[in-house]
Amino acid sequence: MKSLTGNTDFMPADIKTAVLIGAGNVAWHLGKALAINNIKIEQVISRTASAAKELANQLNAVYIAEPGQIRENADIYIIAVSDDAIGDVLKKLPPTNGLVVHTSGTTSLSIFEGFCHNYGVMYPLQTFTRNRPVNFCEIPLFIEANTPANLEKIKQLGGMVAKEVYPADSATRAKMHLAAVFACNFTNRMYGIAEEILASENIDFSILHPLIKETALKALSMQPVEAQTGPAVRGNAQIIRRHLEMLNSIPGLKNIYAILSDNIQKKYHKAP
Amino acid sequence: MKSLTGNTDFMPADIKTAVLIGAGNVAWHLGKALAINNIKIEQVISRTASAAKELANQLNAVYIAEPGQIRENADIYIIAVSDDAIGDVLKKLPPTNGLVVHTSGTTSLSIFEGFCHNYGVMYPLQTFTRNRPVNFCEIPLFIEANTPANLEKIKQLGGMVAKEVYPADSATRAKMHLAAVFACNFTNRMYGIAEEILASENIDFSILHPLIKETALKALSMQPVEAQTGPAVRGNAQIIRRHLEMLNSIPGLKNIYAILSDNIQKKYHKAP
Repeated sequence: MKSLTGNTDFMPADIKTAVLIGAGNVAWHLGKALAINNIKIEQVISRTASAAKELANQLNAVYIAEPGQIRENADIYIIAVSDDAIGDVLKKLPPTNGLVVHTSGTTSLSIFEGFCHNYGVMYPLQTFTRNRPVNFCEIPLFIEANTPANLEKIKQLGGMVAKEVYPADSATRAKMHLAAVFACNFTNRMYGIAEEILASENIDFSILHPLIKETALKALSMQPVEAQTGPAVRGNAQIIRRHLEMLNSIPGLKNIYAILSDNIQKKYHKAP
Repeated sequence: MKSLTGNTDFMPADIKTAVLIGAGNVAWHLGKALAINNIKIEQVISRTASAAKELANQLNAVYIAEPGQIRENADIYIIAVSDDAIGDVLKKLPPTNGLVVHTSGTTSLSIFEGFCHNYGVMYPLQTFTRNRPVNFCEIPLFIEANTPANLEKIKQLGGMVAKEVYPADSATRAKMHLAAVFACNFTNRMYGIAEEILASENIDFSILHPLIKETALKALSMQPVEAQTGPAVRGNAQIIRRHLEMLNSIPGLKNIYAILSDNIQKKYHKAP
């Protein structure tokens, strides 16, 4: 997969004004990254009025409460809302020739059909938390559009905020999002379960910090499939049994432990 | 949990000579950390002769092939073998007044009963990979012994290689190990599954590096339970359904995805 960014010809961006729809974690970080790069965020709208007001304030934008107030002549409309809500937003969007993009990993490009003339996707592959700064430059951005001209516009805009911009069709982007759910969301749940187990013994989660750091660093320097350690990959049935006994009182966790250990054992010790 | 290390009175260590039983990842890293701190590793023995020979060579120690060759007058015998094999090692150990320790998270102190006079545990809470250097100083070490005098000896030795040395009984240590399986072993499996999903689209795993880094860094600066993101915590049923469909052809992964999403949803959206 070749990044497009290297090919940018430093043309002045065709996109100068934006409307931001959504005020969640992605809207927050993407909005700021665009504003820093002199894209004028004109309006911010969200179902969560308080968040939208605060974000509008930070971006020197106008907060609007009703979709009917969305102006028709912005260069780009960025829909950074929950995947379930993208369809609703499109129904309420005013007629426009501007570029309409969503930021979702799993929502297909086809969702725009029948609603807009010019549309595309900008999907940043990262986890965003409101009050935690992220360096947008380090985030890969996956883009798609309905025409080569629109892809070029999104490429230019993306190249302003991200270091690596990749074209990817909806199916590939969905696979990327699925992989990210495992590498980020489920990984964080593993941390959270560890936190809960330690809390039951009044041990602070910070005791695991060096282990979490090393586990992640290892994945950055070698293939995780080669880096697997632990009782399951060693085929240590005795320890697995004892851990399952320790989890007897928490059936949900016992089940997760059993299924993941089984998955690791099947992967690394294939039955003859 | 208070680290003991701060209380060390810089007494000369009672332990000067060691026999290392095992040549796996823990033996490798612990052996080197001790040797650097002027503990003389006299002998190395392991069922894996080639690894034991190589490690003995690196530690300026003698490789021995038979348990009958283990000398009786070392100050400490470090059993760093798979948990399943600790009992076997104890049966073959020569009679000694030296301190015998294992390095296991889940194996109880009571395994030594009837085999040794002086015994204990040194459990480093970290993941070790043969050819990957780790800074032992950053690793918390959990210790336990059958007498206060032996605990003091292990505390001194541990303080030489690790920055934080904590006393912990067998039950607490087992909980710590169980938490580590989630935070490290299962986390790495999540990375591995993500790697497999991307490989099916010929996408290099490195595309996920920024996400993995940020997910881990976030866990070092806030509680993971507060940091959960993704479709399941957002209650995004549509995306979960699409991801499950994408995993239809891989029943093992589909099951893992469903169970983890269900666990997250139950935790964050408790039924009324």
